[in-house]
Amino acid sequence: MPEKSWIAKYFAPLVLAEGAVGLRDDVAALDTRGAMIITTDALVEGVHFLSTDPLETIARKLVRVNVSDIIAKGAVPVEVLLMVGWPQGRSETDLGRFAGALGVDLKLWGARLIGGDTTSVPGGLVLSITMTGRCHGPGPIRRFGALDGDDIWLTGEIGAAKLGFDALRRRETASPFIGRYHVPEPPMLAAAALIARYARASLDVSDGLLADVKALAGASGLAARLDLGVIPFAGAPTTRPEQMALATWGDDYQTVFTAPPEAANAIAVAAAEIGLKLTRVGTCEPGKGLSLYENNKPVNLPETLGFEHG
Amino acid sequence: MPEKSWIAKYFAPLVLAEGAVGLRDDVAALDTRGAMIITTDALVEGVHFLSTDPLETIARKLVRVNVSDIIAKGAVPVEVLLMVGWPQGRSETDLGRFAGALGVDLKLWGARLIGGDTTSVPGGLVLSITMTGRCHGPGPIRRFGALDGDDIWLTGEIGAAKLGFDALRRRETASPFIGRYHVPEPPMLAAAALIARYARASLDVSDGLLADVKALAGASGLAARLDLGVIPFAGAPTTRPEQMALATWGDDYQTVFTAPPEAANAIAVAAAEIGLKLTRVGTCEPGKGLSLYENNKPVNLPETLGFEHG
Repeated sequence: MPEKSWIAKYFAPLVLAEGAVGLRDDVAALDTRGAMIITTDALVEGVHFLSTDPLETIARKLVRVNVSDIIAKGAVPVEVLLMVGWPQGRSETDLGRFAGALGVDLKLWGARLIGGDTTSVPGGLVLSITMTGRCHGPGPIRRFGALDGDDIWLTGEIGAAKLGFDALRRRETASPFIGRYHVPEPPMLAAAALIARYARASLDVSDGLLADVKALAGASGLAARLDLGVIPFAGAPTTRPEQMALATWGDDYQTVFTAPPEAANAIAVAAAEIGLKLTRVGTCEPGKGLSLYENNKPVNLPETLGFEHG
Repeated sequence: MPEKSWIAKYFAPLVLAEGAVGLRDDVAALDTRGAMIITTDALVEGVHFLSTDPLETIARKLVRVNVSDIIAKGAVPVEVLLMVGWPQGRSETDLGRFAGALGVDLKLWGARLIGGDTTSVPGGLVLSITMTGRCHGPGPIRRFGALDGDDIWLTGEIGAAKLGFDALRRRETASPFIGRYHVPEPPMLAAAALIARYARASLDVSDGLLADVKALAGASGLAARLDLGVIPFAGAPTTRPEQMALATWGDDYQTVFTAPPEAANAIAVAAAEIGLKLTRVGTCEPGKGLSLYENNKPVNLPETLGFEHG
């Protein structure tokens, strides 16, 4: 199926933004009001999703891995460019399902499709979204900027994606975690209410909590100390190895941020106001690396702190 | 090779833009000064380039297919996000060659790498660039906006890419056109001097001159009349089939635009001032579709007007 008919049939109807003139041009005018940020995230068949995953959940995950980056910076999603490398063997029905789900999910997050490129690929499905965001504050909350003594806060819970992935591998199709593996739920309301207002440094948890917290503190030249006993794990794991498995596995797309201790009460109140589960999981310290504690007793770190995308 | 070491070793050194903070974050601050546009173009191994093409020319073509869209809209390239899907079997040496050539070519066009995503892919190499541009005028020159009676202007010459592709297939490695197939030369200086100042409608010639001219006039609800006798073909073809082969093959990445006839003299002077080959190849007329003439005699159109990316 040639490129132009794909665009006209499946993607042009999703385009409502004025600057994109219905994809009838080679470029889109960019919304530049406010402090804008931009990110790109790709999903590849056989690397980030399985060939048998439903097209609808692949589309939603594609949107959300990008949304997650925007939210973690204290911004709101604005515009989207979509790159689709479509395998010659995939059906037009699949493309329709992908585009339909993409349109619904973009609308949910307030993001507008303004352009992109579609092509066929000889291998598996390759998808990439470039997304812009408008900062709620004067600029993005960076990975760096944390100070010694900052609290480390975590939205939501950790491990739901891993539990869903495991259930899928065991063919336990009734597991409530499968949906959370397929379709992560970045903390939409946290961007304005918490991150832009209180965070000094912030990132989304996509490579594993331990690895990401270490990276967050490290970006500011600090060490992180995490309290394993308070980390809100999905599925209430009871053994240390189970906890470590969840704490080192990515794909949860929650946000972890640092903030001054004197803001702790205001942060807790703001989280309660938006109904967001938010946990103070640790602190930033002088030094380098990551230390884990439970009831103030040191806990050995696992060999691998997180997932490295190969 | 894991993602983070690729980024640090090969791509971070290319990043000079302040908003990108050396790729040490998940997002980049976007340059939003002026009227900004954005475009995405992908290149796929086995579809847009051959597996044996040099990594250096693939990198430069990737930059230039995007630059071509920006220039055709009367804008200057500003910022770049890069998506790299790297095959597990490709060497690190290849990646270094790709990144090196990319950096050199981005600098040539004044574009700055600010972010992106790298991942491995099970199939062939998949590359995509999202590029922003700053309009020289108050906004982009669109595909539409041509008026009845407008002249149709073409930069450079048509067919060099096709001649290079043919030479490659015949293993005529000495052909001067091979370089122009591998590395197109979009008309950089035309954006400010001509397109932003005089064009009413504009696009880049990427699918074949005949197809693209028809699309350009059609986007404004008009027909195009082309004078075959004045089209500047590369390689001076002498037969009608040779001419048609060049006029229907894409990848030249020149710009075709319409402008009011009363601007014709000023346009010719401006082109001469920047040393640009520019030819008035036709006019816009009431109606629909494309007609071809030579010495005011109608010429039959070929069955296919251009290339549809499959």
